[in-house]
Amino acid sequence: MLGRVLNTHQQWLCRRMADAGMPVARQVAIPDTSTSIREAVAEGLTRADLVIVTGGLGPTSDDLTRDEVAGLLGLSLREDLATRRNIEAFFASRGRKMPPRVLIQAQVPEGAIVVGNRHGTAPGLLIPAAAGRFGPGPRWLLMLPGPPRELRPMFDQEALPLLRERFPSASGFQCLTLRTCGIGESWVEEQLDPILPPLIQQGLQIGYCARTGEVDVRLVATGPAASEVVAHAESAVRDRLGVHIYGINDDSLEAVAIRLATEANARLVVAESCTGGYVTHRLTNVPGASKVVWGGWMTYDNAAKQQLLGVASEVLSDHGAVSEACARAMADGALRAAQATHALALTGIAGPSGGTPEKPVGTVFVALAAAGAETLVRRFHNPFDRETFKYVASQQALEMLRRSLLGLPPMAGIRAPAKAA
Amino acid sequence: MLGRVLNTHQQWLCRRMADAGMPVARQVAIPDTSTSIREAVAEGLTRADLVIVTGGLGPTSDDLTRDEVAGLLGLSLREDLATRRNIEAFFASRGRKMPPRVLIQAQVPEGAIVVGNRHGTAPGLLIPAAAGRFGPGPRWLLMLPGPPRELRPMFDQEALPLLRERFPSASGFQCLTLRTCGIGESWVEEQLDPILPPLIQQGLQIGYCARTGEVDVRLVATGPAASEVVAHAESAVRDRLGVHIYGINDDSLEAVAIRLATEANARLVVAESCTGGYVTHRLTNVPGASKVVWGGWMTYDNAAKQQLLGVASEVLSDHGAVSEACARAMADGALRAAQATHALALTGIAGPSGGTPEKPVGTVFVALAAAGAETLVRRFHNPFDRETFKYVASQQALEMLRRSLLGLPPMAGIRAPAKAA
Repeated sequence: MLGRVLNTHQQWLCRRMADAGMPVARQVAIPDTSTSIREAVAEGLTRADLVIVTGGLGPTSDDLTRDEVAGLLGLSLREDLATRRNIEAFFASRGRKMPPRVLIQAQVPEGAIVVGNRHGTAPGLLIPAAAGRFGPGPRWLLMLPGPPRELRPMFDQEALPLLRERFPSASGFQCLTLRTCGIGESWVEEQLDPILPPLIQQGLQIGYCARTGEVDVRLVATGPAASEVVAHAESAVRDRLGVHIYGINDDSLEAVAIRLATEANARLVVAESCTGGYVTHRLTNVPGASKVVWGGWMTYDNAAKQQLLGVASEVLSDHGAVSEACARAMADGALRAAQATHALALTGIAGPSGGTPEKPVGTVFVALAAAGAETLVRRFHNPFDRETFKYVASQQALEMLRRSLLGLPPMAGIRAPAKAA
Repeated sequence: MLGRVLNTHQQWLCRRMADAGMPVARQVAIPDTSTSIREAVAEGLTRADLVIVTGGLGPTSDDLTRDEVAGLLGLSLREDLATRRNIEAFFASRGRKMPPRVLIQAQVPEGAIVVGNRHGTAPGLLIPAAAGRFGPGPRWLLMLPGPPRELRPMFDQEALPLLRERFPSASGFQCLTLRTCGIGESWVEEQLDPILPPLIQQGLQIGYCARTGEVDVRLVATGPAASEVVAHAESAVRDRLGVHIYGINDDSLEAVAIRLATEANARLVVAESCTGGYVTHRLTNVPGASKVVWGGWMTYDNAAKQQLLGVASEVLSDHGAVSEACARAMADGALRAAQATHALALTGIAGPSGGTPEKPVGTVFVALAAAGAETLVRRFHNPFDRETFKYVASQQALEMLRRSLLGLPPMAGIRAPAKAA
């Protein structure tokens, strides 16, 4: 609650629950005090058939949740022998002495289904609330340990099957995200507005998620025809957005680029100035990148551009380091030096300082040299903070590469100097 | 709510509010339907003096929040002329045609204080709720736009000063985070346990936040003596952890390294294999990095190591690319090629495949060559997923650089091959 830690449980659990046909209706985060815990759990049970609680199951003095929940539901605690043995085995297998207080984690409320923890000592608990106490139907409380590497496998392997048994009627739920880049949200909406009414009548819910330089189109449907509705919508959206869709769901542009490069048996190199290694970092985040990424240069200093990539001093003196000519020379030099099939190069002004009226902060030139083809250079204007600038420029470079590998028409850049914001 | 987007607003706002002495008591996330929005806002106003709402202020059909809040509070909407002009200017300055429906963002509830948006078109709104309607005292509703790069500057520059005026009695709150890396949480706790009791008696709250390869120690106090209590605790903790503390609060290791390198008038280069450009990316995220970062090499392929950094083929054939000898040769080659003062080099196995019993996945060698000094090489074992591996390895490299620039004793590495997890 002090904002020192980012909570990733909510996103992770919401996604898992939605994919299992049980979309989450509300997320709540509270301080770990007795009153807050009791109040929030009681309120949740009034509101929903199932409440998932994370954290507060450990052995330390601020782990209050197990006791508070037992108190709220009027359940006494008993020692669970299997859990006790799991805790003892956990310490024994690591050759560590077991502090006595960890055994408090074997105390479970009467009537709770114990959910085994293969990666830690605090078990999960699935607890039925007395019928009628919080609402008409049966109510369930699922308690999960806080550490992600305990929570996630426990949820997938142990808890979700138990939930499916108890909520067998969870309606069909289908969610598909089509990922685009290089186009704006309003353009996407303009393209899709005419085709939406019949789809929405069929039960489609459409959502847009716009981030800087990219728009996700999310297609959701529930009920027995969910799959058909989403498939139908996907095909209609693809007709409209075509080339701009680079992937679905969790596809990243770098993963798509590496896949295409691998299929093309390509050898990739990257020469970066303003992005400082970020494009190469993204490409090498993809497992298997080593098959196609040969290497790269980070030429921040002008001397590095000349010395490492062979950029001619006249290019720098006549056009400057942030220029179409320099980007071209960097890409051509990189392609040559590595005898690569594809070379990306980026030079620009990440800011916050260094802009001029002709080349304001955010200006970037992206070049793509490919063996046997004319080198392509595009100018973009990304007037954002430094890290966003790097991200958007890297998207532009990766998208140029993706289109080249697919033989698609290249992206449009901008021509005239854009005005600074 | 479907878990497709990670919500970072709550952490960010909680942190800002806590630092301003107004800790947040509850976080709620809801679907963007009329009923949910009205219900959650009404509930929040019953519970607290101030409710902050993010998102739903844009021009699209799923942006319902402005209308629902006006309805809930019984306020009619009026056009705000300054906002209209800001929206028109926003499109004009970008040379883009203004779609008519964006002007809906100039509709604001009667009585709302309009909070200017310098980075977008939807204004923020600070709205008083009718006294007595939701609880005894005055109640305020702050509505902020969803995009982080609009919300964050608006909150800091415009909204927070308005809140401070309205909540002048916010109690003294002091929070200091001391950031360490390269040591474990249990070691930190062992060091600090003996000195804590008197500090806690003075009112100190201490918190640890352990992430892979780093531990933050958070010192918190409230009340009139908050500053003294935290200052006293800081000095006691620094006595114990000394060299391991690299910064405070939002200091990043890369920012500290760039600052020290700038003071030392250094010229830095980086030669990366397994980290694929990530170290260079982190260094160049720091504004002003161009003063000290000359450039770098990303030598993924063995041929790149030989050709670009002059690593001898015997080094590769006798020791392999993941070896102390190769890391040393990479750093020495990079230092020489750029006539740099400091060269970092990293070579290792990010995984998921490629490990051997002697060099399991997660093995990394980090070398630091400095002009006129003996080249230092350390071996580490970071048996994590690919991106965490890159992050932890980059921390190790940056920490080696920081210590070298400060003349501190170097980090310890590992000697024997660690066993695979």
